[in-house]
Amino acid sequence: MTGSEDVILALLILIGHWVHVTLGGVALAPVELPDGTGNDTSKLFNWHPVLMTLAFAVLMAEGLLAYQSPLLPGLTREVRKRVHWGCHSAALLCAGLGLLAALQSHRLKRPVPMPDWYSPHSFLGLTALAAVAAQFFLGAYAYLWPRLGLPQRLALGPVHRFVGMTAWVAGLAAVATGVQEKLTFLQLGRKMAGPDLYGPAVRVPAAVLPLLVALAALVLYH
Amino acid sequence: MTGSEDVILALLILIGHWVHVTLGGVALAPVELPDGTGNDTSKLFNWHPVLMTLAFAVLMAEGLLAYQSPLLPGLTREVRKRVHWGCHSAALLCAGLGLLAALQSHRLKRPVPMPDWYSPHSFLGLTALAAVAAQFFLGAYAYLWPRLGLPQRLALGPVHRFVGMTAWVAGLAAVATGVQEKLTFLQLGRKMAGPDLYGPAVRVPAAVLPLLVALAALVLYH
Ligand code: HEM
Ligand code: HEM
Ligand code: HEM
Ligand code: HEM
Ligand SMILES: O=C1O[C@H]([C@@H](O)CO)C(O)=C1O
Repeated sequence: MTGSEDVILALLILIGHWVHVTLGGVALAPVELPDGTGNDTSKLFNWHPVLMTLAFAVLMAEGLLAYQSPLLPGLTREVRKRVHWGCHSAALLCAGLGLLAALQSHRLKRPVPMPDWYSPHSFLGLTALAAVAAQFFLGAYAYLWPRLGLPQRLALGPVHRFVGMTAWVAGLAAVATGVQEKLTFLQLGRKMAGPDLYGPAVRVPAAVLPLLVALAALVLYH
Repeated sequence: MTGSEDVILALLILIGHWVHVTLGGVALAPVELPDGTGNDTSKLFNWHPVLMTLAFAVLMAEGLLAYQSPLLPGLTREVRKRVHWGCHSAALLCAGLGLLAALQSHRLKRPVPMPDWYSPHSFLGLTALAAVAAQFFLGAYAYLWPRLGLPQRLALGPVHRFVGMTAWVAGLAAVATGVQEKLTFLQLGRKMAGPDLYGPAVRVPAAVLPLLVALAALVLYH
């Protein structure tokens, strides 16, 4: 739908800016502390929001838009289908790596590793990931290989569409809770108060959430 | 749909338990501190999650279910419509009071009032409230009073349904981010670690989020 690409771009810029400027950027390994007392895994963790945003707000959104006629009107249904599952494959890869980044940032933390599964966000995230993975493999089995017969595919259509939308929206909600959790860590960790609470460190991630609502509405409106 | 009433009940019990046992229950006014240095507005605030859960996970869900045939098969369309707008009226009232509880818990805090609008949750919450209020007044204007002509009502149908679903899901996402924010406050405030992170103070609110996904799926599946 008109406008969805603009919202996707805005989300990418906002999350990119937030991770790069406010959260300090990304790194592929833990950074040793100069005093030798342990390490800082926060830049390794920062791949998590980057990859999850790519997966859910960019790649899956593009995968869903591929089936909408006004976009690239010249495409045949066969090509749209290839874009659809290509984008969802890339999204699943990013989501898997994004999960790994979060898990490893906990596991590799020194002197003491960090715990897992202590947040509502992680429960919702796991639910969304399970739903998206199930949807992906069922979709691939039914529509691609070995591929069901036409009557079965026609019968599956409404279920595939509804479960796909639900899984995707659950993923966007996981993005929202993740942004909320990380920002609360930051606000309390840095003892933010007064004008800091009204600056870009807060307003940039906060703007992401209403934009996620706009994205879901623009992509799913039929 | 089958199961939605069970999920609504489960959400009510989980949030009720969490607010009552973990967050310390509700009160209609700030509680003065025994040492006279100020007050505790957290029990006043606790009306916020209770009323918002009632509004979005209970009353609005019932309002949407009213249009689904398997539920109370004897109902005429006229009665379903009355249940629909009745539930949404009650929901809007609860949501308004829920917002007031959050705002007043900030405003009445002593010795220093607390700031507003410092969270992604509050941005998403305001977006959802604006969407729900607009949907409500447009719906009342079009379908109830002064009421549009039949062709206009028929044309509005798909828009009313889609915008309504979007606004409701945005509200459920606001519930999810609110639970995440409040629990992070608690975890850091009480310096929770080790087994505490895997006890009911965390697991009860965490279970709410996957249940919200289940609720949205059960209510919206057509
Ligand atoms: C910008 C987006 C995101 C941010 C800022 C973010 C933030 C976080 C944070 C701070 C943690 C560590 C604390 C914890 O375990 O709760 C975390 C963990 C986790 N996140 Fe995210 N998240 C985002 C998106 C997502 C998405 C879209 C999913 C899945 C659909 C997801 C799934 C998870 C899971 C499963 C964990 C648990 C890992 C563990 O327990 O070790 N996140 N996230
Ligand atoms: C996480 C992965 C996936 C999600 C979230 C998803 C979601 C969706 C959604 C929402 C639609 C409806 C699009 C629209 O009408 O605008 C759709 C259609 C479709 N998807 Fe997927 N999908 C996924 C994976 C796959 C895979 C791997 C395939 C394999 C080729 C596939 C094949 C199709 C086909 C053929 C349609 C058209 C079905 C019809 O209209 O009858 N999907 N998908
Ligand atoms: C169980 C559900 C909820 C919980 C635990 C919760 C939690 C919180 C918390 C901790 C605050 C204070 C911190 C802040 O300003 O961010 C807050 C404020 C707020 N909440 Fe919620 N919330 C819930 C549901 C909702 C819902 C469903 C909405 C709207 C649809 C909403 C809208 C707001 C708004 C607008 C504020 C800002 C008030 C201010 O800035 O003074 N909340 N909520
Ligand atoms: C926040 C408030 C509201 C929301 C979220 C909302 C949402 C919805 C949804 C999702 C449906 C489709 C239900 C289904 O087919 O299962 C619907 C139908 C309907 N709503 Fe609302 N609604 C709201 C307020 C109102 C109000 C105040 C009225 C005034 C009477 C109203 C009148 C109707 C009517 C007449 C239908 C049936 C329309 C049709 O199918 O053509 N709604 N609403
Ligand atoms: O006022 C109403 O409008 C709709 C329908 O007539 C047009 O969608 C309906 O069911 C009503 O009760």
